[in-house]
Amino acid sequence: MDFLELAAKRESCRNYADTPVDKNKLNLCLEAARLAPSACNSQPWTMILALTPEKVGQAAKAAQELGMNRFIGKAPAIAMVVEEKTNISSKFGGALKDQQYAQTDIGLAVAHFCLEATQLGLSTCIIGWFNEAQLKKDFDIPESKRVRLLIAVGYAADSSLREKKRRPVDEIARFV
Amino acid sequence: MDFLELAAKRESCRNYADTPVDKNKLNLCLEAARLAPSACNSQPWTMILALTPEKVGQAAKAAQELGMNRFIGKAPAIAMVVEEKTNISSKFGGALKDQQYAQTDIGLAVAHFCLEATQLGLSTCIIGWFNEAQLKKDFDIPESKRVRLLIAVGYAADSSLREKKRRPVDEIARFV
Repeated sequence: MDFLELAAKRESCRNYADTPVDKNKLNLCLEAARLAPSACNSQPWTMILALTPEKVGQAAKAAQELGMNRFIGKAPAIAMVVEEKTNISSKFGGALKDQQYAQTDIGLAVAHFCLEATQLGLSTCIIGWFNEAQLKKDFDIPESKRVRLLIAVGYAADSSLREKKRRPVDEIARFV
Repeated sequence: MDFLELAAKRESCRNYADTPVDKNKLNLCLEAARLAPSACNSQPWTMILALTPEKVGQAAKAAQELGMNRFIGKAPAIAMVVEEKTNISSKFGGALKDQQYAQTDIGLAVAHFCLEATQLGLSTCIIGWFNEAQLKKDFDIPESKRVRLLIAVGYAADSSLREKKRRPVDEIARFV
């Protein structure tokens, strides 16, 4: 599959089938994420992957705070992305330039993760709304760390793709 | 090409050949970036793509502040990624949860951009160190905005790949 086809095929899935996700496939998604670039090769993230019904249930509940993300209750796997310390070069450069490289690095890694999932026939949804304190308690994440994103992973119950709504290229880019 | 092969092939290129980059190829990279997901579909970024020698020279000079990134002087094209306002849902959610979704969104889009470049036989290097004030002046970017990243784009002078140094999977992930 050509990369543009893969990018077009990846969409946020909010309706999962009752099919479990094989751990080996998640390991391939992790491998793709691991290959992503990061500022000064800092790799400032870790992932916790909930696969057992109990743990998936806990992660799902945290994402459903205030009635949000109801669909996640059907996802058979949920990855949690935790920001880790950057290395000294990235930290120093970021401080001097007032940039938060770690969060961009997490975006790069999560893109790789979701694209490999798509390649494997899986569907994903990146979720930024969750009860972070609850996740820290349920998954033994130190209080000082930040959970940045969740990724729901499973098989789409409906395989037809929606049309992507995006701004046209001439609104998002200019050549000089 | 399988996605993992593509992800393995993408590497930060610091030695560019004297070959210009076709604008159509950059448009395909932009199309891939445009397809990336973002929090609440906010798409909070724009890109300025320097292709003329004068403008590439200005962008390169800004990235060479304090003797850094000397290699960028040979890149035939440089994209600058500017953070734009998020939509109201992303802004509200981010404020409530103390998260900076825009920067993760930029990481997602930049991953897509660089992977499509790799698919097209181009090489890239994401750069987080640059004189932002100078870029704003040279490229008419409003003072209030933030330039988050540059992406050098061109053809690698040396096509052999380096081994990627990454933390092993068991250090970056745990299943629960």
